[in-house]
Amino acid sequence: MHKQFFTLDYQSVTTRARLGTLTTKHGQVKTPVFMPVGTQATVKTMAPHELYDLGAEIILSNTYHLYLRPGHDLVAEAGGLHSFMNWDRPILTDSGGFQVFSLSTLRKISEEGVEFRSHLDGSKHFISPEKSIEIQMGLGADIIMAFDECPPYPAERDYVKKSKDLTTHWAKRCKEAHARPDQALFGIVQGGVYGDLRRESALELMELDFPGYGIGGLSVGEPKGLMYEVLEELIPVMPQGKPRYLMGVGSPDCLIEGVIRGVDMFDCVWPTRLARHGMAITRHGNLAVRDKPYSRDFRPLEEGCTCYTCQNFTRAYIRHLLKAKEVLGIRLTTIHNLAFLIRLMQDIREAIREERLLEFRDEFMSAYGKDR
Amino acid sequence: MHKQFFTLDYQSVTTRARLGTLTTKHGQVKTPVFMPVGTQATVKTMAPHELYDLGAEIILSNTYHLYLRPGHDLVAEAGGLHSFMNWDRPILTDSGGFQVFSLSTLRKISEEGVEFRSHLDGSKHFISPEKSIEIQMGLGADIIMAFDECPPYPAERDYVKKSKDLTTHWAKRCKEAHARPDQALFGIVQGGVYGDLRRESALELMELDFPGYGIGGLSVGEPKGLMYEVLEELIPVMPQGKPRYLMGVGSPDCLIEGVIRGVDMFDCVWPTRLARHGMAITRHGNLAVRDKPYSRDFRPLEEGCTCYTCQNFTRAYIRHLLKAKEVLGIRLTTIHNLAFLIRLMQDIREAIREERLLEFRDEFMSAYGKDR
Repeated sequence: MHKQFFTLDYQSVTTRARLGTLTTKHGQVKTPVFMPVGTQATVKTMAPHELYDLGAEIILSNTYHLYLRPGHDLVAEAGGLHSFMNWDRPILTDSGGFQVFSLSTLRKISEEGVEFRSHLDGSKHFISPEKSIEIQMGLGADIIMAFDECPPYPAERDYVKKSKDLTTHWAKRCKEAHARPDQALFGIVQGGVYGDLRRESALELMELDFPGYGIGGLSVGEPKGLMYEVLEELIPVMPQGKPRYLMGVGSPDCLIEGVIRGVDMFDCVWPTRLARHGMAITRHGNLAVRDKPYSRDFRPLEEGCTCYTCQNFTRAYIRHLLKAKEVLGIRLTTIHNLAFLIRLMQDIREAIREERLLEFRDEFMSAYGKDR
Repeated sequence: MHKQFFTLDYQSVTTRARLGTLTTKHGQVKTPVFMPVGTQATVKTMAPHELYDLGAEIILSNTYHLYLRPGHDLVAEAGGLHSFMNWDRPILTDSGGFQVFSLSTLRKISEEGVEFRSHLDGSKHFISPEKSIEIQMGLGADIIMAFDECPPYPAERDYVKKSKDLTTHWAKRCKEAHARPDQALFGIVQGGVYGDLRRESALELMELDFPGYGIGGLSVGEPKGLMYEVLEELIPVMPQGKPRYLMGVGSPDCLIEGVIRGVDMFDCVWPTRLARHGMAITRHGNLAVRDKPYSRDFRPLEEGCTCYTCQNFTRAYIRHLLKAKEVLGIRLTTIHNLAFLIRLMQDIREAIREERLLEFRDEFMSAYGKDR
């Protein structure tokens, strides 16, 4: 890990928002940042140079998926994930914790770790904190995550507390198992929607002095307002000099509200998944370009957008491609949606610098509020 | 149509091969040429600029498919096919004849035209020679094809003769119906594997003085040797100053053997379809990169290949993408396969110019002969 892994470049005086820089051996990342998700060592439909062109500075990839296929040993043999997928900017891998709980079947959780069956072929596997770190060291991402238990919503306070305790315990074991100084290992704050448990979790993890902290177990079904409340209770106890990563969150409203409350990093499959369902994110809400009203609409997905898709193709053509199940259709919607979110984060950073983030939020939401 | 639509730039003295130039309002095409197929107004998985980068000078699109979806009226409203799909180089559309016979169901062929049911939704349609030309004028390709009947192989001589007569009759009606001087309308030679019928067909069409001629109804199941014999009997009666287009043919051996016998233009879905099945074309035969032996093979698809895929990604990574059903996998194999065929045509043109095409054929086939 770089000596000065995170620098706080500017702290807003009107909100908790801040500007920062992550420094890794694969380059720098300006925060607040949205990280496109490349679950299986590829951001779905995209080639690396297309992501560079969009201005993507960091991507996320999934430990659970890569462990099962093609295997972290194979990726390590290829020279690590950067070399395997030919991506030379920073990468973050999650710990596999969330996927073990959301994708696999027949889980048995113990103090030791989690036994589960693969969603691919039903084969039996066991991941412990040590195993997760071993896999992530093999993959070689710049930022890696501690193995955590992610409780569902809703969940009883007692269960959430025990789960939080287990996550803290596992975080210690992860830190002990971790032996690659070129990687930044983040702890993950849990505690469900219980503000006091969240703060307890953060304080326990902070004793371990991680270089950054994930906020896990949110955006799992709870109302957005409740998520914002949890952030308001949690973030003031988190250290000012470390990055805060709200895991699995990526809709425009949540990005803006998260930044206002002090979040630095986000990831979500939402923009790329939405694209594959024939939906384009625009300033005026989400556009179902696959639908009939757009069959003779010869405007771009979003007027004024400078992305490759909007500069070159019409809604009518993209709709035709989607209806005909042509790959180029989902390529074009994916490019646009990622361009939209990356540009949104640039706009947010500019608004922070100019101390007008709240006005930016209000303007953005008044246009975005309704789908059309 | 450009006044000098086709110029014969060089006639080999050792074979029937020749070099030529097609001139259209969307630019020039050097022949012999292989045309990538964009059935539904997109070369599957590819963006236009990627095809430009590969050196693709002309693509083919399918009248039957575009008539059914999105409809030629919609494409015309978009400003024609070039504008609809944002492709500014030449396009050729076929007549729909072959697809009506190979894809649709419940066909009724009459002197007037063909009634059929859509392979998409079973709806009833009727395409006559006049209708095919109307559709193709709406699509606005630079080169369009007369509506023909394409008999299967094997077929009785009597049936093939009647079918050939009908195709000649339809060619006349197509010519009469055609009213766009910016398009070159080609007649299509039929006659199955009967050399005399092929020559009759060619001579009948030549009376109509088309600017170019398709050779249809080959590569439909007959042995390759028989196809070559038909070309040897047919091509000597065809005019020297007009391009000859062998329809639906695109494997490397058939391209080389076709050029040797005097063919100028080819198209085939084979390279792009092969790519989607996880197969890469290489000088040493076709490589089943989706297969297990390549899981830890960190070489490019083809050593020495200069395409984007081979310059940036390994067999192991591409295999992973294909196994994981990631779109980038078939994008990368498609880029490589098209690059291979476009480069092969460049090499063929150079070999013609240097009067060493037969040696080139022997060298190429001795390496390509066996799959590995």
